[in-house]
Amino acid sequence: MRDAVREATLAVLSEHGYPGLAVEAVAARSGVHKTTVYRRWGNADGLIADALGIAAAEPWPIPDTGTLAGDLRALARLVVANFADPVEGPVARAFVLAAAQSGDAARSLHAFFARRHEQAAVVVARAVERGEVPAGTDAAEVVRLAVAPLYYRLFITGEPIDEQAADRAAAAAGAAARAGALTAAPVP
Amino acid sequence: MRDAVREATLAVLSEHGYPGLAVEAVAARSGVHKTTVYRRWGNADGLIADALGIAAAEPWPIPDTGTLAGDLRALARLVVANFADPVEGPVARAFVLAAAQSGDAARSLHAFFARRHEQAAVVVARAVERGEVPAGTDAAEVVRLAVAPLYYRLFITGEPIDEQAADRAAAAAGAAARAGALTAAPVP
Repeated sequence: MRDAVREATLAVLSEHGYPGLAVEAVAARSGVHKTTVYRRWGNADGLIADALGIAAAEPWPIPDTGTLAGDLRALARLVVANFADPVEGPVARAFVLAAAQSGDAARSLHAFFARRHEQAAVVVARAVERGEVPAGTDAAEVVRLAVAPLYYRLFITGEPIDEQAADRAAAAAGAAARAGALTAAPVP
Repeated sequence: MRDAVREATLAVLSEHGYPGLAVEAVAARSGVHKTTVYRRWGNADGLIADALGIAAAEPWPIPDTGTLAGDLRALARLVVANFADPVEGPVARAFVLAAAQSGDAARSLHAFFARRHEQAAVVVARAVERGEVPAGTDAAEVVRLAVAPLYYRLFITGEPIDEQAADRAAAAAGAAARAGALTAAPVP
């Protein structure tokens, strides 16, 4: 039942976005009775929190290309591909919009990204082992920097994102890490 | 009258955010008759577009510290100070939320940021002249990189921003630029 409700939540978000996420719509789509959905998930934010919780627990396809530059490029391209996907893209946008309007949804989204940053930290750990970047490089900060320009374009400046934007963000994050600008005690 | 309506728009946004931006509230606050506000500004998005248009035309206090690192740090700290300000912060958040929900507001916000990127380009032009970064460095991309991690934290991951986060984002953008990762034809 939880899977059915989650699938229905994602489908409704994909088609109608956050403003269209009503418990009734999810109940109808999932075949679960609406009083059950209300009792277990409460409201739209409860549905989003659960969908994000499941998503956060799923392993991210962390790349292992042999270089930090290649790994960061693959991570950044994953973000671009996700937002370009006709099903996943609207859901991801809906999650961000929900977080801007609801404290519960925000907490769920933040936990999701914290988990993503943790999962991706291994690409930086490997780069430290290979001697590509200084020991003490802040892994989460490298990952943030590789994807932040893409989210900035999408949600703030409204500029397009594509593989070139992904590659450039990844190259910049890699260069900053190699220069020692992203160690735990940042270079002034 | 335009100034009065703009001041009222910012005050209502600051206190009630985008969901609370009603033409009636702006009319009452500004002392301009609501039929006039409706006729000239149309709706909440028209009010936001006009407020952003005026803001975009205002010069940004572009720093000139003598080094690219110093200038980028000052720019990033301006963003942190803006969001920390009890009046400006809620308005800036409301603009982003409005853009996520309205095409008109999005176009206004995007024009605002395009103008900001143009205004800030001079700090990169000076750094090229001083030989700090390679000729052909993409000025807008350096500025994006210096502020994107702050917006990513605020609007996507929900992580706090402070002067340390600003300094780190600025240092990373400067390091990437110096390494040649932000030239018009990006280093692979």
